[in-house]
Amino acid sequence: MGLAIGVDVGGTKVAAGVVDDRGRVIERLKRYTPAASPDDTIGVIAGAVSELLGRYTVDAVGIGAAGFVDQTRANVLFAPNLAWRDEPVKKLVEEHIGRPVVVENDANAAAWAETKLGAARGHEHVLLITVGTGIGAGIVLDGRLYRGRFGSAGEPGHYRVVPDGRLCGCGNRGCWEQYASGSALVAEAREFARRSPEAATRLLQLGGGSPDGIDGPAVTEAAREGDPGAVRCFEIVGDWLGAGLADLSAILDPGCFVIGGGVSDAGELLLGPARDAYEHGLTGRSHRPYADVRLAELGPDAGLIGAADLARTG
Amino acid sequence: MGLAIGVDVGGTKVAAGVVDDRGRVIERLKRYTPAASPDDTIGVIAGAVSELLGRYTVDAVGIGAAGFVDQTRANVLFAPNLAWRDEPVKKLVEEHIGRPVVVENDANAAAWAETKLGAARGHEHVLLITVGTGIGAGIVLDGRLYRGRFGSAGEPGHYRVVPDGRLCGCGNRGCWEQYASGSALVAEAREFARRSPEAATRLLQLGGGSPDGIDGPAVTEAAREGDPGAVRCFEIVGDWLGAGLADLSAILDPGCFVIGGGVSDAGELLLGPARDAYEHGLTGRSHRPYADVRLAELGPDAGLIGAADLARTG
Repeated sequence: MGLAIGVDVGGTKVAAGVVDDRGRVIERLKRYTPAASPDDTIGVIAGAVSELLGRYTVDAVGIGAAGFVDQTRANVLFAPNLAWRDEPVKKLVEEHIGRPVVVENDANAAAWAETKLGAARGHEHVLLITVGTGIGAGIVLDGRLYRGRFGSAGEPGHYRVVPDGRLCGCGNRGCWEQYASGSALVAEAREFARRSPEAATRLLQLGGGSPDGIDGPAVTEAAREGDPGAVRCFEIVGDWLGAGLADLSAILDPGCFVIGGGVSDAGELLLGPARDAYEHGLTGRSHRPYADVRLAELGPDAGLIGAADLARTG
Repeated sequence: MGLAIGVDVGGTKVAAGVVDDRGRVIERLKRYTPAASPDDTIGVIAGAVSELLGRYTVDAVGIGAAGFVDQTRANVLFAPNLAWRDEPVKKLVEEHIGRPVVVENDANAAAWAETKLGAARGHEHVLLITVGTGIGAGIVLDGRLYRGRFGSAGEPGHYRVVPDGRLCGCGNRGCWEQYASGSALVAEAREFARRSPEAATRLLQLGGGSPDGIDGPAVTEAAREGDPGAVRCFEIVGDWLGAGLADLSAILDPGCFVIGGGVSDAGELLLGPARDAYEHGLTGRSHRPYADVRLAELGPDAGLIGAADLARTG
């Protein structure tokens, strides 16, 4: 029935799962990532895969990793939240488990999963935009995962939306993820609470009385209750998000945007303003169709499911 | 020996040529475009092709048109400088000449030509950026022309680089082509001449004594002579150009940018500052290679050559 193992390697945890050919996760294991040690991280991945291999007959093994994967899909060149630097992940895991594995960037794997088995089923031109602390992305074009010349495609979180704008962790200023991410949402809410505490009673309450206690889930909860300040924070971030989608459409003309990541848990609170800004900002909008803007369907399992499917289908 | 006919249909002229399989133009015809009449435009194209068909045995006929071509490569949905609206160009030309033709967007055709037979030979991930009055573009990814879901990909001239920025002909504000095009170059030079006529003596002289007389070739000529104001205008536009290339690399990670269009006649006066800004602005620049930034090689023939080659190779 075409089972495959997918592994999602993040900076804090390793999730491994057995996935069927319709994208259902049959069994799932989680391990903490010993991120400081490259070898131990390999060991944890190999251990989880071996455990699952002992219980299931699978066709393929795929690994999605939070880092720059080279174009041979074998090595992780750099991973911001792992100690891997030019790490030959494919070779090392294969030595441990004694069978071939495929390595892919985690956001690419998630984009593949949402395209083949999730929110963008039926589409061949898909951009997955993951709105979390920052912005992650994966790109499917003409029905194939797009990796770029050096394997570094799909980092729109670091295209510049404001010249001389906010300083970004990447060293540049004005990157999209400084305006359209969970960090931006929280910063907006905290600043609002600091400046107008009397209007931010609910946000402050959810933040334990302090602006700095307000986090993403608090803003979402307040906005769901209809708190005007929290709703406005989503509008501001959604507006930046949608303006970016319009830019990406000008360049890539996808048929579907899938919005995932923690901030997308707010659903239409984020997607409504994003869709408005996208449709308002799309160049040539009177002469072309709009792309669909949809919520991701596979949640945190997307990377794991996509890694499994990519390993199976090449 | 694999001859093909390529046609480049612009708002002012139709150029048709017989092209060999190495991209050399064996014979070239030019006609004025009767742009106001959709039928007459088809007639001029068919006439030029028929004339060439009378003298050469060719394998295929391709048409590159300055407009939105649908994903079936048959119809021009909209052409800003032609009267074509939902024009079935493929069908109509085929009826006239009695053999199959392929229709493609002109910038796509030019990008294909530069990739296969021009400046980006050997590359599989190429962005052609045409810097003229505005910015045109064509995209080759994984060795194939990329058209997008609705045939509208490759319009980075209309991604937003400045929120609430300069008003663009497309109706939006802050589009890249308002900052990194020939129009921007000329506007910069004219404003400089208006504000500081004593420092703009040479530019004003080339403009016939008036700021409004200064055009793109005048700025290029003055800059080539070392005129500091004109050189600075190229630096400003080149800086915007390079910042955009960095944005496009964050998203698409190409191996090569090819810079064409009239403004690129200035060569390193434009490309030097563009390359600097690109390398300075590339996200993750310490962990990835830079893309090549090269001048186009095929000049105004690129669209014609690319249309011929696309018709031949599918």
